[in-house]
Amino acid sequence: MNEDTLIQRLLDILPDMTPDIELGPGDDCAAIPWINDTLLLVTVDQLIGDRHYLRSGNTPTEPRRIGRKLLARNISDIAAMGGQPRSCLVTMAFPSYTDTERLELIAEGIAELARQFDIAVIGGDIATTPTDEVFTLTMMGQVARDQICRRSTASPGDVLCMTGAAGASFETDHHLDFTPRTREAQWLAQHRFPTAMIDVSDGLALDALRIATASKLQITLDLDAIPRRNPDEPVEKAIADGEDYELLFTVNAENIQALLDQWPFDEPTVTPVGSCRSGKPDVLNNHGESLNRDNTIGFDHLDNTQ
Amino acid sequence: MNEDTLIQRLLDILPDMTPDIELGPGDDCAAIPWINDTLLLVTVDQLIGDRHYLRSGNTPTEPRRIGRKLLARNISDIAAMGGQPRSCLVTMAFPSYTDTERLELIAEGIAELARQFDIAVIGGDIATTPTDEVFTLTMMGQVARDQICRRSTASPGDVLCMTGAAGASFETDHHLDFTPRTREAQWLAQHRFPTAMIDVSDGLALDALRIATASKLQITLDLDAIPRRNPDEPVEKAIADGEDYELLFTVNAENIQALLDQWPFDEPTVTPVGSCRSGKPDVLNNHGESLNRDNTIGFDHLDNTQ
Repeated sequence: MNEDTLIQRLLDILPDMTPDIELGPGDDCAAIPWINDTLLLVTVDQLIGDRHYLRSGNTPTEPRRIGRKLLARNISDIAAMGGQPRSCLVTMAFPSYTDTERLELIAEGIAELARQFDIAVIGGDIATTPTDEVFTLTMMGQVARDQICRRSTASPGDVLCMTGAAGASFETDHHLDFTPRTREAQWLAQHRFPTAMIDVSDGLALDALRIATASKLQITLDLDAIPRRNPDEPVEKAIADGEDYELLFTVNAENIQALLDQWPFDEPTVTPVGSCRSGKPDVLNNHGESLNRDNTIGFDHLDNTQ
Repeated sequence: MNEDTLIQRLLDILPDMTPDIELGPGDDCAAIPWINDTLLLVTVDQLIGDRHYLRSGNTPTEPRRIGRKLLARNISDIAAMGGQPRSCLVTMAFPSYTDTERLELIAEGIAELARQFDIAVIGGDIATTPTDEVFTLTMMGQVARDQICRRSTASPGDVLCMTGAAGASFETDHHLDFTPRTREAQWLAQHRFPTAMIDVSDGLALDALRIATASKLQITLDLDAIPRRNPDEPVEKAIADGEDYELLFTVNAENIQALLDQWPFDEPTVTPVGSCRSGKPDVLNNHGESLNRDNTIGFDHLDNTQ
């Protein structure tokens, strides 16, 4: 059973909506009505020792970078909705023999990035485990109600675009040191370019499939157009690698030239990488072949180490 | 280093306030301004296998009760602020060999209590660990701005009261099956009785000390007055046991008779159990002796199993 299937099984059991919820499970964040015609965005993500980072061996992950990554990937989820990160809660679960200094360095990694993005840490919890390390961060953000970017709102004819490059995240330590794309996401949302948006956490192909599934359409990827972090990596592998933390979004074809003309950032670039059309939800290559033939597309955080 | 000391060390590192935070770390919940002169309350808590429940052995905890406890203790934190629980996010971290059925039963335990309290599960995350189980729940609630009950607002002369009884939570399975005191807390908050409030999660003595410390005063406990769940348990042990999940609150002495006269519930009872006076923050027994002489008062979730 893969991650998305198990999540759906659990969601089928849990009560997911009450009248005051604007957007329930199934997107990068949930949304609740907030003050002044804005929405409160909320999301949660966890980092697990020897799954998302290395605790020991020849190259254990520096504790500061663990804290930084924990916060950065949650900021990326807020960015994917077009929102601004505001505050967070942190839980730490660790074996009782853990050095206090290690926990303090992880907190410093969180603190440094939190200051950079003007985020307050407003609560949390600590507890001991038998052996594993698990760090969890709940992130809250804000978005204007009419600027929220969802996965489910792409239309046939839209052009698929991405920021930056795909692949080679683990080899290059990009997964530890990436800058969440809040600036780019807010620019996009304020200029109303995205018809749908997601952040690329589990590989470009799988996250494109998530837009396709939520929006009930087919996406064709132009594999030759996809920028790669490592140009020597085959594109098929680059779009299956996890943890790019780039923005993947759809734009009405009439607006694509305006987007490319007005894009104000030297880094990251923005690149059209595919297109949407009617049909059974799927992701196809340039030859019209499904990239999800064996249902094992992309990066599954349940099965992979890191 | 105990739990409160380590939390303070970490909080000293983390940026904890931005202008839009109403109440930062240090109480049962944080609070953010919300719609219609209400506050959004937010809190997070975790349950860890073989720490807060038993995974194996002769009497492993039933999975449904794990899910129920995870939600119930977070509802209790919302209640402690006088608030109403609204929505939550759930993360599950477990070894890859975990039965899907186990996770579904835990979700059912969450779902059953969530329906009872009209709470929506609006998001979450799943991931695998090397060996441990860690479940985390982030809870959001709502309280009228003028009804929020904090730890830091007790005054000398106030009477300390508690709902229900103290002690013997683990022997009686109360820690798994308790009903969070939202009904009682909201009645108290709406009638403006509490000058300060907390829920008893780490033993009555330690949680009384937390009110004393936050409110900068001394609390004298009337040990003979404290109701015990198991009358055969010495009161000194009953007030050191963890996980009562009762309300502990202070009331202006002028209002105590009105509280006792108007209390509308047969179960739980409400009982005056102490009093506040000026002085170095501490918790004393009837003879004026500190209950925190060796700095090891109460139940420390960092050191204890369950």
